Amino acid sequence: MASKNTTAANTLWQRQPKCNAEFFALTYGALVSELLRDLESASAVTAELDRMGHSIGIRCVEEVLAKQPANASAPQTFPATADLCVTTLRMLFGVSTDVQQVSDTVYKLQMSENPLMQFVEVPDSLKDSLEYSQLLAGLLRGLLEVLQLDVSVAASSSSGSSSDGCEITVTLQQVLQEGAGDEYHEE
Amino acid sequence: MASKNTTAANTLWQRQPKCNAEFFALTYGALVSELLRDLESASAVTAELDRMGHSIGIRCVEEVLAKQPANASAPQTFPATADLCVTTLRMLFGVSTDVQQVSDTVYKLQMSENPLMQFVEVPDSLKDSLEYSQLLAGLLRGLLEVLQLDVSVAASSSSGSSSDGCEITVTLQQVLQEGAGDEYHEE
Repeated sequence: MASKNTTAANTLWQRQPKCNAEFFALTYGALVSELLRDLESASAVTAELDRMGHSIGIRCVEEVLAKQPANASAPQTFPATADLCVTTLRMLFGVSTDVQQVSDTVYKLQMSENPLMQFVEVPDSLKDSLEYSQLLAGLLRGLLEVLQLDVSVAASSSSGSSSDGCEITVTLQQVLQEGAGDEYHEE
Repeated sequence: MASKNTTAANTLWQRQPKCNAEFFALTYGALVSELLRDLESASAVTAELDRMGHSIGIRCVEEVLAKQPANASAPQTFPATADLCVTTLRMLFGVSTDVQQVSDTVYKLQMSENPLMQFVEVPDSLKDSLEYSQLLAGLLRGLLEVLQLDVSVAASSSSGSSSDGCEITVTLQQVLQEGAGDEYHEE
């Protein structure tokens, strides 16, 4: 099952239109810098990155589900949504992600590297309050919200280096509507 | 000569770390929206995108030159820098770009599609004042500045659609220091 998913995710990644990841990282850095200039606190910047990611996630979800292999079904349980998150991160960056199921309502996604954090050094003064990669957390939150799952998502890349990867913790708050993800398979 | 350059550019593109171009376009859109919220006018947003691109271009130039084939030489004349711009755009997006040499001090770069403008519809009210793709113009300006060429660069994608491409006009203002690009080949 895992290897089937991995193959499907690889194929998906190959089909994606691409741009230069380093250029993306630099542009994302410009976005974060802009927010740091404009907003009052680093935690407000984190919240804004989360909001932007959420908005992107909602726009991405149909794309992600539409590009799944025809025989894939929408995840029917919360833990099963971890695979969708792994596929999504693969579609965005081509990276592989490990899943650790902590409980029925919590899983952790461990990206082996953090493509957002290339060329980035978060100053010590911001490390505690700024979550640089929160865009990804917001994105997964938006994605799962469309599947009627209210989740909280926290990114953790506080070591502040690309090669240290990024851990994303997804926690189920409530199911908004049972089986609502099914509708995405009717087309 | 053109085909040799094209092959080299293709090889360069294949070697680049990649991320999803649609995700990039959405994130860039979030950046532009943020600037539109924060700044007073659309022309101030254009200027800020130009500034960000300039800063990215300065960071990119060593990378671009370092990744050139070993036998490539730094452009010795202003018109010859068009090839470097073409290679750069290829490295960033994998797109092909046509060059039109207008005069000894002006050339136009025509990208067949505009990767920044996917999913984007610039409102009519902003079309005259906002240059959505100015980040690219600023980037090329930064790149050429490091080669000691003071240029003005204008992007034009006012039709507001990805498939309409993007025209970038590069105009030489002055040569800051003759032959200064040579130093990038000493390493």
